Formats: sequence, structure tokens, C-alpha cells
Amino acid sequence: MPQLRIALSQINPTVGDLARNADLVVAWTKRAAGRGAHLVAFPEMVLTGYPVEDLALRSSFVEASRRTLDALAARLAGEGLGETTVVVGYLDRCETATPRLGLPAGAPQNAVAVLHGGRVVIRSAKHHLPNYGVFDEFRYFVPGDKLAVVRVHGVDVALAICEDLWQDGGPVAAVRAAGAGLLLVVNGSPYELAKDDVRLELVRRRSAEAGCALAYVNMVGGQDELVFDGDSLVVGADGELLGRAPQFEEELLIVDLDLPAASTDDSAYNPGDVVADGLTIVQATVSDTPVEPYEPAPASTAERLSDDAEIYGALVSGLRNYAAKNGFRSVLLGLSGGIDSALVAAIAADAVGGANVYGVSMPSKYSSDHSKDDAADTAERIGLNYRQVPIAPMVDAYLDAVKLTGVAEENLQARVRGTTLMGISNQDGHLVLATGNKSELACGYSTLYGDAVGGFAPIKDLPKTLVWRISRWRNEEALRRGETPPIPENSITKPPSAELRPDQKDSDSLPDYEILDDILDDYVEQDMGRDAIVAAGFDAALVDRVLKLVDTAEYKRRQYPPGTKISLKAFGRDRRLPITNHWREG
Amino acid sequence: MPQLRIALSQINPTVGDLARNADLVVAWTKRAAGRGAHLVAFPEMVLTGYPVEDLALRSSFVEASRRTLDALAARLAGEGLGETTVVVGYLDRCETATPRLGLPAGAPQNAVAVLHGGRVVIRSAKHHLPNYGVFDEFRYFVPGDKLAVVRVHGVDVALAICEDLWQDGGPVAAVRAAGAGLLLVVNGSPYELAKDDVRLELVRRRSAEAGCALAYVNMVGGQDELVFDGDSLVVGADGELLGRAPQFEEELLIVDLDLPAASTDDSAYNPGDVVADGLTIVQATVSDTPVEPYEPAPASTAERLSDDAEIYGALVSGLRNYAAKNGFRSVLLGLSGGIDSALVAAIAADAVGGANVYGVSMPSKYSSDHSKDDAADTAERIGLNYRQVPIAPMVDAYLDAVKLTGVAEENLQARVRGTTLMGISNQDGHLVLATGNKSELACGYSTLYGDAVGGFAPIKDLPKTLVWRISRWRNEEALRRGETPPIPENSITKPPSAELRPDQKDSDSLPDYEILDDILDDYVEQDMGRDAIVAAGFDAALVDRVLKLVDTAEYKRRQYPPGTKISLKAFGRDRRLPITNHWREG
Repeated sequence: MPQLRIALSQINPTVGDLARNADLVVAWTKRAAGRGAHLVAFPEMVLTGYPVEDLALRSSFVEASRRTLDALAARLAGEGLGETTVVVGYLDRCETATPRLGLPAGAPQNAVAVLHGGRVVIRSAKHHLPNYGVFDEFRYFVPGDKLAVVRVHGVDVALAICEDLWQDGGPVAAVRAAGAGLLLVVNGSPYELAKDDVRLELVRRRSAEAGCALAYVNMVGGQDELVFDGDSLVVGADGELLGRAPQFEEELLIVDLDLPAASTDDSAYNPGDVVADGLTIVQATVSDTPVEPYEPAPASTAERLSDDAEIYGALVSGLRNYAAKNGFRSVLLGLSGGIDSALVAAIAADAVGGANVYGVSMPSKYSSDHSKDDAADTAERIGLNYRQVPIAPMVDAYLDAVKLTGVAEENLQARVRGTTLMGISNQDGHLVLATGNKSELACGYSTLYGDAVGGFAPIKDLPKTLVWRISRWRNEEALRRGETPPIPENSITKPPSAELRPDQKDSDSLPDYEILDDILDDYVEQDMGRDAIVAAGFDAALVDRVLKLVDTAEYKRRQYPPGTKISLKAFGRDRRLPITNHWREG
Repeated sequence: MPQLRIALSQINPTVGDLARNADLVVAWTKRAAGRGAHLVAFPEMVLTGYPVEDLALRSSFVEASRRTLDALAARLAGEGLGETTVVVGYLDRCETATPRLGLPAGAPQNAVAVLHGGRVVIRSAKHHLPNYGVFDEFRYFVPGDKLAVVRVHGVDVALAICEDLWQDGGPVAAVRAAGAGLLLVVNGSPYELAKDDVRLELVRRRSAEAGCALAYVNMVGGQDELVFDGDSLVVGADGELLGRAPQFEEELLIVDLDLPAASTDDSAYNPGDVVADGLTIVQATVSDTPVEPYEPAPASTAERLSDDAEIYGALVSGLRNYAAKNGFRSVLLGLSGGIDSALVAAIAADAVGGANVYGVSMPSKYSSDHSKDDAADTAERIGLNYRQVPIAPMVDAYLDAVKLTGVAEENLQARVRGTTLMGISNQDGHLVLATGNKSELACGYSTLYGDAVGGFAPIKDLPKTLVWRISRWRNEEALRRGETPPIPENSITKPPSAELRPDQKDSDSLPDYEILDDILDDYVEQDMGRDAIVAAGFDAALVDRVLKLVDTAEYKRRQYPPGTKISLKAFGRDRRLPITNHWREG
């Protein structure tokens, strides 16, 4: 059987930066060619970054992507890489789409192209467009109706894009009909908890359906609320895992494959035939000649991370990328002495370095001594820049000017802290981090323009019970590495409090977090109804109270900064209750 | 030809409040029956309100909608309305959908039902699902595959839902095949500028395609960022406009029609036939017998509003509904003396009454005397509650605690004002209004957590040049009515300034608003690229500067409160650039 050395380039593109992304493709192709790769593959829409959202509807952006693709093909050849076959995702447009109301403006397509010998050899577009969860691709793209097959050194390589692998029928079915020797899938597949297990199973199953080996290349890095976890992998036609890249790190995964020779008679299919789900096969040949036999090199297979390590890795990657891609070198947060801000400080130090983290303790007359001590302790453990700004003078100035009592006075304190952080941020150029967790966010237990200020909210998708668990994991990890645990034990063990009035505890307003998080899991993650949650054994009055909080907190959630998504049901732009929302049957 | 008196109930449902919406249907059916109507029609999803967004994915909500529909049918009969044929939109689910990844959870459908004699006679679901602009229906609904035809007093009435009318093919084509005598379309069609003209032309065209009269019923009122403008109408098979309801007001539009008798042979079609675009016809009979001949009553045809009156009506309706549906009786805003806050105050007074509007002037050391005078003048003209809170003591308290200069100090002043407004709001229960306009929002010319605070932003979709135009219109309207113009002439004519530093003018940071709004119109509304805008005659450096502002202001725009949409390209949840957005070709 012909051999092929494939290189999966698990890289981190930047949305919109066509020039930088093209540079990356050239640099990584050079690396891959240097290691003898015949075929180098890059992720979905690597040239534009992913997802581009409304940029897809701007025709000047689509044209820029197309120009960049052509220029890239020429540049690769110019740099002596013309003999390497390079597969890149980019943004194209459909030239045959019929205009109609609701057709995405300019008929954009999420496309993939094969570059060789200075030119674009073949191209095709994503057939299955996801429009659920974080995806809105029916808004942005026209579906493709072709299966592209490119012959590389005597092997037929079929191309597909991300969702094409997840949906039944379509390209995978067509691959079998086309009799390809390898299915190459380019992906922009966002992280969610334990997705790596699902992904391997899926790749194995589709490989069996397609009847050939399958190579899966994914991006890494973050884009707004999404983190891409990499986890690129290759399985043989028999389902055997042949190589796998780590999560959250750039990697050039090189795998040597023995693949069936392309059929030289035309009986299997005729190009132009509609073979499955309305797909037409298009074919191009880079080379009919197999490579000279060579000694295969062993491929690397990265070890899986534990669930906790994986979550922590996603949080660090999400913050690091958001800060860097938005031009921030340093971050700023309020340190209350509580667990949320301590964990965010630890994540921040791992993301941008402790020397680039600025913590401000902003005590009020209600702040306990242990809060001030724990805040200082956190700062010292992490090695971050620390200062204290007592808020009494500002709070008193407001209270002299307007009468504020009760909740209005509580919120005032949070807003004085928010304004102080934003002032320092505007003065010194730090990215402000909001430190709220998912349980608070679900229930609206935060102050608009107070603790909710910031440009990014690293743990907004972590329920409070998971905040504790991940904090313990991070401290244990430090001990394993012989380092100082970053999070004060006291911040982990003491009862949570907002300290906005004397002796206030979270438990005055919210149920015990163990119970609350269970109810929230049923309601938010599982979409269970009220009666089903009560039937699962929770107190009916408590369930009603929690559901009412969740249903009416939508406005606050929408105003919260973006943060790394950990679960499919993260609160964000893809999850939206109406603000005006009076669910009531009778 | 048989006669039929139809009643289009142009009403204002509340999202989620099934009980209240069902009460409205009963009350309006009673009114219609009292006026002799044979067929009463309500808007799209009137039972649940529209749009329900993620509530559609909660199966307990879908079941509640189904139960409410059945109970409504029984209740109508119980209240002596069983002989009236009632058409209502509601939320259903598809019982035959095949589970697959990405299928909306629970397979919800945007459905319509005919109620008669205490039961549901027939039902069908929306076939064409819009997924562009403000619509995300591929996320939420499974498309319907039936055309429902109900025989009422010897006339075949076909049913369709909103987008079914806007798209070619599908239900409209099937109506002709079915040989129906009337096409009844239920709608939740949001306002946009001059849509009423488009709508009448569309209804006429579809009526000709369907080969029958067409009755179009739309909702009124507001839901979050959407305003529904009503404009229900009826055209005859010849395209003649037979009756039309006003915009932005509830109305029972009653029209007497002479309609072709339903065919008594079965040659036209057989129920169960697939007739067009995969649609199956389903049929039910309420009554074969035509009504006794009666003297038709003249139908009313509302006069069209001028463009300016229409925009102003949408703004007032949007704010009134948002406040009322979120439980606010009063609104609060900062009065700067400038045109934006003066116009918002006028809109607010028209929406909730001047006595329920609270204006706060918050002068700083940079505030001019004319600003303070104009703010007080606005308050007096409108008859709102007015107070002054100088911000110097709070600003000084921050400046003593942290070093803030330049833009950081400018933003501080805006944030002290925001915190002051939010404090008063929390204390007294008012809805805070943000007063920014679309030009500012496009360019990010506002302060996060400063002038951007609030629960609603009435003029966020009005470009600055339109702010002036609509202000002048409102003043002229007052003179026409013999009332005091609400907006001080000086606020309209003076150069705009944020007054955050000595002698600051908007023109220090932004181009002349006439030019800026033209460039923004090209870029935002028309989606033109940079080169095309330059080719249209604008200075290239200026275009680059404006486009850069728009591309990088996404974070601020996302944090801005919701506001009434006037144009298709309003900034909101349906328009989204990536936050991390480095569009650069080379």
C-alpha cells in the first residue's frame, strides 16, 4: 500500500488577521516539510480565524479571504514549498446561489482548499451547517454540495469540515461511495467538558462508516467565549488510534500512514455523479505516483488530562488568549479574600504571569479582618502586585449626596469598587477581570456595574461547588510540583459572604450551594421543568424560588462580561431567555 | 358568493404569560362575536407571546402552551363563544421528528390552531423559518409540512404563519393548488422603517399568487428590543385594499368579505396529497353552510403615519411596553442639557406620563451654565420631576484615593453619574434610561458603566442626525397641537459636547455628524466595504478612522442596554462582530 506522511498543524489563528494567519500557515508548512510531510493540514477557517460571526456578511472581508488564499498558494511555491500538499480552511462565497430573502448576504461559504504547485487545486464547502449551541452557521453560510477528493501520491484523500463529521449522512456517506483512502476533516471544535472522549468515539465510528483512515485536525487557543482544545488525532481504517495531539497546546502531529492505492479504473464513481445526500464528487490530482517506500517514524500520542486539569487548562487558555488577542499584557481584579477572586487570581497568574496581575483590596466598614488578611495572603502566594484602596470616602460622598439604604446601599459599595477598578484600568491599561461564578450568575446574585464590571469573567461558567473543587485541585497540583499552593486554605473553607452589610452570608439569600448547584444543573444544564425537578426530590418551594431567580436574572446575565465556556449550557450569547419573561400558566 | 365577517384582533400579548394571553383571546373574541364576526384571528404565537427565545426549548413550557390551547377551546365554548371560529398562534411540538444532533430540544413548532365548538379543529406549523436579522427560528423550531384548510360557512380558509408569506413557494403556492377562498396569515412581524409599504405590496402579490383574498393579522406592543407595529390588513383577490388597522395601537379590524364557495367535488385536490414544496394539505370542516345574506358594514382603513411620526411612535411604544412588562411605573434619566437626553425625556413623558419621569442634572466643574439651564428648561417643559446632584464631592473622593488623569478622569465623571442614577433607581424603583444614540454606539463614543448604564436605551438605534430631525418633528407636532414644544431650541441648535473636560466638543473626537452618519450608513446599514465607501467620495483617512472605531467598539456595544430597533441593522443580539477582531489583510 502507498505510504503518506501527514502533518496536522494544531495552531492558534486570530480572527480577522488574514496576514498573520497566512504567515502561520507558511511557517508551519515549512516545519512540516522539514520533517518530510507530504500532506499538511490546517484547521477550519484558519485563514480568517473562527468564528468570524458578522464579518462573514461583509463582502470585502470575503474577497480579502479569497485573495489571501490565492496569494498564499503562490507564496508557498515561492518559498520552495510548492511540492507539499497543503490543506487550509478559509472563507469563500458561493457563485451559484440564487438570491432570496434570508440568504446570507454575499452567499459566504465555510470552505476548504488544497494548495499545491503555486495554485488552488480544488476547493469545497462545509455541507452540514450547525445552528445550535454556540453555532449560528445558518445565519452566515450557504451549504456546500460537493465532496472534494484529491489524489496525493496515489492516495485519494477526501475532505470534510467539522460538522460534516458530527451529522449522519452527507460527506461521510459520500466518502465510502467515492472509495477514498483517507478522510481528512478540518475543525474549529470548541472545548466542552469531556468532549475529547466523545470526539475519539465519533472519529472511530465515522472512520468505520467511511471505510478508511480518518485524520482530524483542530485548532487551539481562544476566541471571545470559546476555547479550542486541539486534541487532533488520526485513526486507521480499523479504528486504531495512531496518533493524538495534546489539549490546549500548539502541536505539529506527524503520522505515517499506509493507505490503499487509488483505484485506477473509473468504475467506483464518475466525477459529477450525485452520490449521497445530494453531494457531487469533484476530483483533482496532485500526483498519481506513490512516494518511494520509507521507514515510518513513530507518532506521538498525548496523555489525556484529568477532568479537573482539563477544566483548569481551558480557563487558563481562555483568559490568556482573550487578553493577548485584545492587546492586554496585564490584568486587574478586586481581591476580596473570598474563594472566587482567589481562584481567578491563580488562573490569571498562570495565564499571564503573576508579575502581570494587579490585585486591589477594597475594604469597607463591613469587611472582616480575615477578608483583608486572606486577600493579602493570596497576593503574596501568587506574587502579584497588591494595593489596598479603602472605599469609605467614596461611599460616604455618595451617601451625603443621595439617600441610599438597604440593597441600594449594598449595591453602592459594589459599584464604588467597580468604578475604582475601571479607573485604574483606564489609567494603567490593565484588563479588568470580573470574578463571579456560574451559580451567582444563574441567580442574579451580583451587582450591575459593581462586581459585574470588567472585560472578561474567567469563571463565569464554573458553578460554585466546582470553584471549590478546582481550587483544591490547583493547590494539590502546586504541592505535586513542590510549589506554594496559590489559594489560601481559609478562602476555601470559610462560608461565602458578599460582606455588603454586617454579618451577611450568601446563605441569607441563597440555598446551600450543594443543593443550589444540583437544582441549577437540572434546570439549566438538563433543561428539566419545575415538576420534574421537584419529583427528583427537591423541596417544591425552594425549586420555585430558584427557578424564579433564574428566569428573572436574564438582564443581569446579558450585561455580564464574556468568559470561557466550559459546558454546552454556558450563559452567553447563544443562551437567551427573553428579558421580559413572565412564564405563568394559570 | 358566500359572505364572511372576519375580525382581525391586533393585540399585545406578553411573553410567557399564558394565563393573561388566554384571557385576552377570550375578551377579544367576545368583542368580535358581539359585532357579528364569524371568524376571529389572533397573531402568531399569541398564547405564549413572541419571540419566546430559549423558552421554546423548555419542554415544560411547550406542554403548558398545549394545555392552555385545549383549555382555551373549552373555555370559549363555556362562555358561549363555541360557534365562533377562532384562529390562534401557539407553541406546539412535532411528534414525528427524528432525533438528531442539533434538532431543537423537544422539537418545538411555531403553530396555529383553529378552535370551534369547544375543541381544536385543526392545527399546522410554520413552514418557512426565518433565521436572519432578528430571527433565529432554526434554533428553536422544527418546520411544519402541512397546509391547513378549514371550511367555515362554506368557504375554504387556508392558514399560514408570517415568514410563509415572505418566502417564495411553500404555503402560498399550496393555497392555489388547494383552491382556497381566503388565505389567513397570522404574524409577529416587527417594525422597521417603512415596512408598512413593503407589507402591503407583499400581501397584494401573494394574494395574486394564491388566487384569493388575503387577511393579515399582526401583533402590536413591544418585547425587549422589538416593537410590533400592527398594520393588520385585508386585500381582495383582485388586490384591492379592503381594510387596514393603525400602527402601534390595539384594534379589532372587522371586514365583510364575499368569498368563493368551497368546491363540493373533490377533483381540486385530495387531502393527503403532497401539493407544493413537500407540503401536505390537511382539511377540516367547521360548517358547510353559508351564512344568511346580510348587509356588509364598511371597514375602516387607517391613514398611514409619516416616516417621522412612525419612528416616534415606535420609540414611544418600545419604551412603554418595556417599562410596563418589566414592572416599572416610572423612569429615571440624567439630564445633561443636550439633545439626546432631552429627546429621551420627551419620549419617556409620552410613554409613561411626565409625572412618572424623573430627571437628574449632575453637573461637574466642566458643565457649562447653558447645560444646567437647558436641563432645567427641558424638565419644566415636560413637567417631569427634577433634581440636581453635583458630582464634585464623589469625583474628588476617587481622585484622592487613586490617581486618575486624562480619559480615565473623563470616564470617572460619567461613572459617578451612572452610579448615582443606579443608586436612586435601586432606592426608588425607577427604570434607568441610557440616552446614547446610534452614532455614538457605532463608534464606541461612550463610557462603559457611565452614560451606558440603564435598563433600556430608547434612542440607541437613532443616528445623531435623526435625533435632531425627530426632535424637531416632536416640537412641531406640539405646536400643531397647541402644546409647549418639549425640547429646548437651544438643545437642538448648540454643538454637541460630552463636557468631560474644558471646552470639549464631540467634533474633537468624531467627524461632523452629517458626514459620520453617511459613512456609518454605508458601512453598517449597507454593509459596504472600505474601498466602496471611499469610491463613493469620502476621504480615505476619515473612512479608515471611522471603520476602525466601529470594528473595535463591539465590546462596548454588547454591554449597552437594549433599545427599540428602528432599522434592520440595529446593534443588538442579532448583529455581532467578534469582540476580538483584527480585520487586516496585509
